[in-house]
Amino acid sequence: MSWRAGIVSLYPDAFPGPLGVGVLGRGLKDGLWSYDVYNPRDFAGDKHRTVDDTPAGGGPGMVMRADVLARTIDAAESVPGPKLLLSPRGRPFSQARAHELAEGSGALFVCGRFEGIDQRVIEARGLEEISLGDFVLAGGEVAAMAMIEACVRLLPGVLGAPASREEESFEQNLLEYPQFTRPREFEGRPIPDVLLSGDHQKIHQWRRAEALTLTRARRPDLLGEAPQRARSNPPNEETDET
Amino acid sequence: MSWRAGIVSLYPDAFPGPLGVGVLGRGLKDGLWSYDVYNPRDFAGDKHRTVDDTPAGGGPGMVMRADVLARTIDAAESVPGPKLLLSPRGRPFSQARAHELAEGSGALFVCGRFEGIDQRVIEARGLEEISLGDFVLAGGEVAAMAMIEACVRLLPGVLGAPASREEESFEQNLLEYPQFTRPREFEGRPIPDVLLSGDHQKIHQWRRAEALTLTRARRPDLLGEAPQRARSNPPNEETDET
Repeated sequence: MSWRAGIVSLYPDAFPGPLGVGVLGRGLKDGLWSYDVYNPRDFAGDKHRTVDDTPAGGGPGMVMRADVLARTIDAAESVPGPKLLLSPRGRPFSQARAHELAEGSGALFVCGRFEGIDQRVIEARGLEEISLGDFVLAGGEVAAMAMIEACVRLLPGVLGAPASREEESFEQNLLEYPQFTRPREFEGRPIPDVLLSGDHQKIHQWRRAEALTLTRARRPDLLGEAPQRARSNPPNEETDET
Repeated sequence: MSWRAGIVSLYPDAFPGPLGVGVLGRGLKDGLWSYDVYNPRDFAGDKHRTVDDTPAGGGPGMVMRADVLARTIDAAESVPGPKLLLSPRGRPFSQARAHELAEGSGALFVCGRFEGIDQRVIEARGLEEISLGDFVLAGGEVAAMAMIEACVRLLPGVLGAPASREEESFEQNLLEYPQFTRPREFEGRPIPDVLLSGDHQKIHQWRRAEALTLTRARRPDLLGEAPQRARSNPPNEETDET
């Protein structure tokens, strides 16, 4: 069974966009995953295809209507899995959540635009607000793409080398060790000797030590070693180039 | 002066993709921002346009070569601002960083693919690793799009209603209050009376209280009220529908 993404978006032409290239694009062509876009304009009640109106209580911008969105979401009822609303108000998306979604059959991604969507459709349709991170986008589309990409690459057959996943960032609460490849010397910088030694145990130990050092310097929170920095802090408050 | 994004990517056709629609697309057409893609394949040294090789020390997958990437980055030297490498090993991107980048003239976004890029080009070209969040993507392209979108929407003239930014999520360490619009009743759910009262002070107080309640329930870390949750925790560990 192919993993299925449903997307509620005013911009169907934005898809697949970057999801159509590389391993995601190959997986799409091979039928390992699929997507359908549901456009709220097709469910508007008037001939102008109006999907928004001014905020109750005043304020700038426009708000997407509950009734139009509800009809759009109802039209996507065949999409399996949770109904997610991309929103900076939601809980942060994570690698653990990507695994959970990838193990299911799919998900519906509701992409807001303008000032947001009417609160009542969130409650009436049981939408789960989920956030890509502590920043604000112009719409949910790119956030949906990021989450779909994080999920789809975990599906069996999508990546060429599934064994590689175990050592990548977050899979063991560690950031990934540095990588090197030919040429052996680049602008006076050699590949570390240990990686050319052929001693697989030493290489494994070196990589693990590098991953630990990097994680301790940049993200001690992943190791549970220090309280996590507020995520809205400016970056680069310390120098940690390895 | 128009804000300028340089993008190092093996997939020039993925751009502008979702950045070509909505307010971002309009801003692009109006010349408020621009982008150029630099494809490492154009800077490969052989007729097969090889950009990657096997990891030194073994392991699955392929690593992007330092020399090819260095030539690509050098070709983008006219792009102003920091040289960012999209990587889950980097510091998390944030709204504060979006403001900082938007106030500058632009940035270079280097998108890795495969298992990653040779560590030596990160050091030799002073790339700053920056992460979209605690999850792994198939490549840096969608992460670059998210960051570009977060920056460009802050540029003067891109959003129709600049005043609205002050009340959106993260701008005052608060998640945004709920929005409502017509119809007045939706599936038995009315718009809260206060929003229809015309009393602007009461409306302001109500919205602020709602934003505080929501932030306290979902993201007490933003208020500095409780230690931040580990970001790799599964979501929905508690019920907090408002």
